[in-house]
Amino acid sequence: MDTEKARILLSGDQYALLTGIEVDEASIGYCRAHMNIEKKHLNAAGVVQGGAIFTLADLAFAVASNSRGQLALAINANITFLQGRSSGTLYAVATEVAEPGRLGAYDVLVSDEQDRVVARFNGMVYRKKGT
Amino acid sequence: MDTEKARILLSGDQYALLTGIEVDEASIGYCRAHMNIEKKHLNAAGVVQGGAIFTLADLAFAVASNSRGQLALAINANITFLQGRSSGTLYAVATEVAEPGRLGAYDVLVSDEQDRVVARFNGMVYRKKGT
Amino acid sequence: MDTEKARILLSGDQYALLTGIEVDEASIGYCRAHMNIEKKHLNAAGVVQGGAIFTLADLAFAVASNSRGQLALAINANITFLQGRSSGTLYAVATEVAEPGRLGAYDVLVSDEQDRVVARFNGMVYRKKGT
Amino acid sequence: MDTEKARILLSGDQYALLTGIEVDEASIGYCRAHMNIEKKHLNAAGVVQGGAIFTLADLAFAVASNSRGQLALAINANITFLQGRSSGTLYAVATEVAEPGRLGAYDVLVSDEQDRVVARFNGMVYRKKGT
Repeated sequence: MDTEKARILLSGDQYALLTGIEVDEASIGYCRAHMNIEKKHLNAAGVVQGGAIFTLADLAFAVASNSRGQLALAINANITFLQGRSSGTLYAVATEVAEPGRLGAYDVLVSDEQDRVVARFNGMVYRKKGT
Repeated sequence: MDTEKARILLSGDQYALLTGIEVDEASIGYCRAHMNIEKKHLNAAGVVQGGAIFTLADLAFAVASNSRGQLALAINANITFLQGRSSGTLYAVATEVAEPGRLGAYDVLVSDEQDRVVARFNGMVYRKKGT
Repeated sequence: MDTEKARILLSGDQYALLTGIEVDEASIGYCRAHMNIEKKHLNAAGVVQGGAIFTLADLAFAVASNSRGQLALAINANITFLQGRSSGTLYAVATEVAEPGRLGAYDVLVSDEQDRVVARFNGMVYRKKGT
Repeated sequence: MDTEKARILLSGDQYALLTGIEVDEASIGYCRAHMNIEKKHLNAAGVVQGGAIFTLADLAFAVASNSRGQLALAINANITFLQGRSSGTLYAVATEVAEPGRLGAYDVLVSDEQDRVVARFNGMVYRKKGT
């Protein structure tokens, strides 16, 4: 996958579009995406809702895990929320933990503009044979 | 917390409103919410995006974990995706795992209209002293 | 699987034996096991090491997830440590979250003799076709 | 923390000693440990039990997260099992995800002698004020 193909994948993802996520760069096993924080992302406490941070990380994870052509189904994700944010831009960088087989593991770090880690996301995919 | 107060909390959560989540019932340590699947929730494969399912579960988790008056901060969530769905309604039921202390654990099951489990969500909160 | 078969499975698990885990009861999608806390389970802070609690929960998870005859491989587990313990007995009860397919989800609660929850464990298995 | 202090911490951890874990190197926010696979680590299927892999990762996590002097309590861990192993040596390398505050996040990769990733472990700690 390259950045162009990742943007095509994103353009078919209605929920990522609704959330306002943009892909910056994609390659094999890698994706960087971002989201400009708007009022629509906030929860009742005035910070970005966990679901919005998850969706940003999940999109980067989907692009990175599908970057080898074979369909990868997300089966598990674990997210740790380290700091809250109410404005600015959030960046998600997804990387591949190991040479993927039937199961694949991906790490995503969500950071702010000063590179402070806001959330850590660890995803897992399953790949069907011969697709 | 009762259902009325949960709806007030929801009404301040912009991202849950954007996602179209509604609270059905809330009490101490408990919340049931739902989301009618629409086109806006789908990913590029035509099934509900993981982030939308997460957001539904997360809202039920937030209501259940904040139901005792003291502010509960979500610090970790683990989600397992068991089945995909592209239409109908999804329900999230959040329950308290144990009598909460400084740390609290909550389970959320996301099911479809036939009570088939679509996703399992396990959340963890931290409560500050004296709030 | 019944309790007798679960004990045979346990008798082949060297690490569970080393740890001192015993199976109390097993049936389809269910297992209860226990571990009497001894000095060998403690960490440098004098409480039961996270790995010992994990191993107890994992054994109950393995019995419950393999209770239908088909081999189930553990692929993910998430554990939340709620309270520490340094003496007494710990019990683990594993249950099935949903009618299992290729993927299965299991919950395990680890409690003390007063039924206070010490840890929550959420496991996930993958089953190969036709085994 | 340096390697010498990490070995002293390990020498008080009965369960890690029982499991046969050794610390190779430790510094601020970092630890590498290993475990030579023996018969005592195997499960009924003849591969290293998930609990033994968890315990190895958990020890490296404990050393790395306690390396700054302040007591760090493990509150959550997520582990993904990518490949099974029945002989050889397993290595765990723990690193700090972000400059730690009250909450800290640590990643541990467990690999074999050929640097193939066997398991991924993501841990979370809580630090009490003023200790």
